[in-house]
Amino acid sequence: MVLPDVEVIWLGGRTRESQGYDLTGLFVGSEGTFGIATKIIVRILRRPQAVKTVLAVFDQVEAASESVSAVIGRGLVPAAMEMIDQLTIQAVEDAFGCGYPRDAAAALLIELDGLREGMEAQAERVMAACRENGAREVRAARDEAERQLLWKGRKSAFGAYGRISPAYMVMDGVIPRTRLPEVLNRIRRLEQRSGLRIGNVFHAGDGNLHPLICYDERIPGQADKAAEVAAEILSNCIDAGGSLTGEHGVGADKSRYMPTMFSPDDLALMQRVRAVFDPRGLCNPGKVFPTPRLCGEVPGPYRQHPLEVAGLAERF
Amino acid sequence: MVLPDVEVIWLGGRTRESQGYDLTGLFVGSEGTFGIATKIIVRILRRPQAVKTVLAVFDQVEAASESVSAVIGRGLVPAAMEMIDQLTIQAVEDAFGCGYPRDAAAALLIELDGLREGMEAQAERVMAACRENGAREVRAARDEAERQLLWKGRKSAFGAYGRISPAYMVMDGVIPRTRLPEVLNRIRRLEQRSGLRIGNVFHAGDGNLHPLICYDERIPGQADKAAEVAAEILSNCIDAGGSLTGEHGVGADKSRYMPTMFSPDDLALMQRVRAVFDPRGLCNPGKVFPTPRLCGEVPGPYRQHPLEVAGLAERF
Repeated sequence: MVLPDVEVIWLGGRTRESQGYDLTGLFVGSEGTFGIATKIIVRILRRPQAVKTVLAVFDQVEAASESVSAVIGRGLVPAAMEMIDQLTIQAVEDAFGCGYPRDAAAALLIELDGLREGMEAQAERVMAACRENGAREVRAARDEAERQLLWKGRKSAFGAYGRISPAYMVMDGVIPRTRLPEVLNRIRRLEQRSGLRIGNVFHAGDGNLHPLICYDERIPGQADKAAEVAAEILSNCIDAGGSLTGEHGVGADKSRYMPTMFSPDDLALMQRVRAVFDPRGLCNPGKVFPTPRLCGEVPGPYRQHPLEVAGLAERF
Repeated sequence: MVLPDVEVIWLGGRTRESQGYDLTGLFVGSEGTFGIATKIIVRILRRPQAVKTVLAVFDQVEAASESVSAVIGRGLVPAAMEMIDQLTIQAVEDAFGCGYPRDAAAALLIELDGLREGMEAQAERVMAACRENGAREVRAARDEAERQLLWKGRKSAFGAYGRISPAYMVMDGVIPRTRLPEVLNRIRRLEQRSGLRIGNVFHAGDGNLHPLICYDERIPGQADKAAEVAAEILSNCIDAGGSLTGEHGVGADKSRYMPTMFSPDDLALMQRVRAVFDPRGLCNPGKVFPTPRLCGEVPGPYRQHPLEVAGLAERF
């Protein structure tokens, strides 16, 4: 990496174990506030020998949440457990016709990977866990084409929202998995109170939620209301023992919420660590930490790229 | 954790994903140089449903090393792959009679854990990999008693060295797994040149070596010679693209070797990071970083606890 004083340093080593302080781990997640990575060496993982994808369909979101807990509770470790709710299912089906039932409350996509031996038996255990927790339909993708179609629904979900809303704000909160039903209920009540539709797409396996707050910026006040709902959702995640970002980072938009997670001492400590690498604050200024300039601002809406609205983004 | 200025801070959160800088990861591995952890919350892992332990016996150390690569190359991920060499086998058999053949060049203990489904098939694949790479004998532990006996040999290995040497120095180097045969050959040549016996006990799965340099401190010059051999072994590990500690840390003894792994700039950066938490250097002084006081010193020998010499340590 290149430090702001143009010093070039290497972090990490070639073995799994290293020594000295874990500066690589510190750099990952610093969101560009330490310096610029100009060369990265990654460890390549072998492609799994076998993959099995299961779709479970539910009439109740709670049943889907409980199925997630049941799968994990049985000691199974899927490569992915993705949930989409009714609003998302309808948007996806309108756009692509992937085969999700339009009247379902939630669909759960569970993918197992690993050795061929025992894969069928593991898939059976996953399907049994879903059935016992109230799934109305459970099936495994018969072939690669069907598997791809199911994943297309999940992967194109954000783009498909262009069909049902001119704009949306996508959140990235994390909660402990056990609190899933409770937090989803709170989001449902927020939807009713605000009058804004909120869809849910999430990585259920690690409790990472992506609520999508739909609004129309041409209607006066709606963008502000969406920002208020966004703040309430994050506040609910934090109250449930979670965090305000799972994979998309703090950036500028969420830096204002950092004081809800961290004490002034915590934040001062982080700023001091940052100053070791970047004493003058030249790298990615205004990100991660709340500053006077950002505290008073309202975030801009997420604007869809024209390709996303047309549902074309996933082709590229 | 408690910082040296008596500030008490929490690092990390309750979800797998977090935000802000990864100060937990930074603290882990700082060897007490930042402050003192007074409370730690850990994630409990479920006990695996099934465990299977395989013993493979070899007439050539190279064949054992190649078997390790073959197991990993087939995409199998054992919970443990432990290798002991002939000197260690003989010490262990003298002390405990665990069932390792005394004339073997190396024994490999491979443990698989996970779901019951597919476990037998995985064990078959592991055993086939060892046979195809020259194992003269391969067998799975028939029951828990036999499994425990095999593990007793590995876990009591350090203590068993009390039978064959009045003192030894235990190393903790790491190398990329692919360099295993080459580095083991270098250690063998060092043994011949120095006249000191060197046994090998190691976590073959992650390339973490624990060479044991046997010496007698009552013979003038032997302790110094052992320290020289130790330095050469670490230098070989680093030359092979490895590191000077896998799990036992840098501490005081190996701090002098840090400049062989890190540039003065790297070390200065780490010292600056340390100063954020402990500006006056009060916490675990003299560890990790080379200081003038330590650079000139020769490390003291590792002295066995009387219980270890008697082979009693593993009972407690």
